[in-house]
Amino acid sequence: MRRFSRVAIVGTGLIGGSFGAALARADLAHVRIGYSPADGERALALGLIDVLTPDLATAVAGADLVVLAAPVSVNAALMAQLAIHLEPQALVTDLSSVKGPVVRAAAAALGAALGRYVPSHPIAGAELSGPAAAAADLFDGRTVILSPLRGTDTRALARIEALWQALGARPQQLDVDSHDRLYAAISHWPHVVAFALAATTAQAIEDEQGGAERAAALVGPGLRDTTRIAKADAELWADILLANAGPVANCADAFAHQLERVRDALACADRERLVRVLEAAAHWRRSLE
Amino acid sequence: MRRFSRVAIVGTGLIGGSFGAALARADLAHVRIGYSPADGERALALGLIDVLTPDLATAVAGADLVVLAAPVSVNAALMAQLAIHLEPQALVTDLSSVKGPVVRAAAAALGAALGRYVPSHPIAGAELSGPAAAAADLFDGRTVILSPLRGTDTRALARIEALWQALGARPQQLDVDSHDRLYAAISHWPHVVAFALAATTAQAIEDEQGGAERAAALVGPGLRDTTRIAKADAELWADILLANAGPVANCADAFAHQLERVRDALACADRERLVRVLEAAAHWRRSLE
Repeated sequence: MRRFSRVAIVGTGLIGGSFGAALARADLAHVRIGYSPADGERALALGLIDVLTPDLATAVAGADLVVLAAPVSVNAALMAQLAIHLEPQALVTDLSSVKGPVVRAAAAALGAALGRYVPSHPIAGAELSGPAAAAADLFDGRTVILSPLRGTDTRALARIEALWQALGARPQQLDVDSHDRLYAAISHWPHVVAFALAATTAQAIEDEQGGAERAAALVGPGLRDTTRIAKADAELWADILLANAGPVANCADAFAHQLERVRDALACADRERLVRVLEAAAHWRRSLE
Repeated sequence: MRRFSRVAIVGTGLIGGSFGAALARADLAHVRIGYSPADGERALALGLIDVLTPDLATAVAGADLVVLAAPVSVNAALMAQLAIHLEPQALVTDLSSVKGPVVRAAAAALGAALGRYVPSHPIAGAELSGPAAAAADLFDGRTVILSPLRGTDTRALARIEALWQALGARPQQLDVDSHDRLYAAISHWPHVVAFALAATTAQAIEDEQGGAERAAALVGPGLRDTTRIAKADAELWADILLANAGPVANCADAFAHQLERVRDALACADRERLVRVLEAAAHWRRSLE
């Protein structure tokens, strides 16, 4: 595919930084200009961007591709300012894990440029964050959800799709509402569960007079896997959960129902029913491999 | 340490089979005799045991070490029959992940032999099961909880402790009740959570007309980690949960309270409180590394 001349990367943490690294690996950007008040200098030092600017206008002016890789609420909040400085032919994408608020902000702010905005969500990252964790291969083999709007320009969509393929990812399309419902279930609610489970176990070990060292010796590989994503950045996840609060609340209810099925079979000591409930879940999970 | 002349391994799945393989690696058994109606032939073919018998009495008679590695309810149920055939100087251990029911069965059945029974729980295994998954290095570097009773013979305890060390594990002592409370929180309840979470996500993906193939493309590394233990054997886990139902129900209540804290902060859109709740959990989880 054709190289971009100037790519603005807004937010250079794990996702934005990896995007910059992947662009360089594929030789798809003449210049990568970063805007990232929190961690831009570290990203520059790591070579994830070529130039750092303390000013969004400078990043966006002259860019033929603008990539929003800040937390979801920041991506949404920056749309209005972005719109002022955007070049007439520039493409825009965001990498947020919640699409609704960003898409609504884009629809309100971008005007004629809305057709060249293609929402993206790369399914990668897990519990790490920050530019130090960024890697050029983060998207290799990973699904990227593209959520084009009714008015999205087909050439803009095709170019963003080809870009993701060139970065090693596998684009799939999903409308905005389906995306936010599905990723509430696939990612956002599981994070709540992992955080709550870690808190529950921490309390139980403390109740038995166990500190951090004791806990590390007692806890096996199972709980480590189950709570790995609870190491994630709390600020970032608060932001995601608040941005997708409705679908997340629906998952909470569905999950409460599933827990109740297990608790009820246990309370009745109904082994057959318990096995049936557990086996249905195990069967689905095995089918994921 | 001194080699055992004849070790009876009752149950030759992942844990019993690995115990057999680890014994051979350390050259600690002259003969390993297996009793395992379900999977003994496979374990024999894999070299996890030297001899297979269809009869518990034959396995136990002449053994100087008896290792119960069947599901927890089976280990408890076999104590009475075991007692009949046990040699006067034989050591007994069980590898169950719930100790209460096995210890109570032992106390009722073993009589004078109770002093030579040392309950063990190796913290290893996660989601795999069966002799095909067994490995001589399964216990390497892993904690093994020993739960001696008031009347446990100190030489028996020392010998079982030395045995685990020779098999590569790190023995720690914990009384039976603390063990069952702690492992309800560290292992049993997290399995319920993983099963329920897998069921919730499966339903959400089905609601969006997604089958197994779609799910595999949409689901990222986070949920795969969080639900990995939900691939575990449903029969085995129903058995464990029923054997430790009281402590598991207490964990369910504690977990519901933790979930409620997150849901409440989300419902109030109280970002500061939400970050505080998530960060406390994240901090503990990071301290586990």
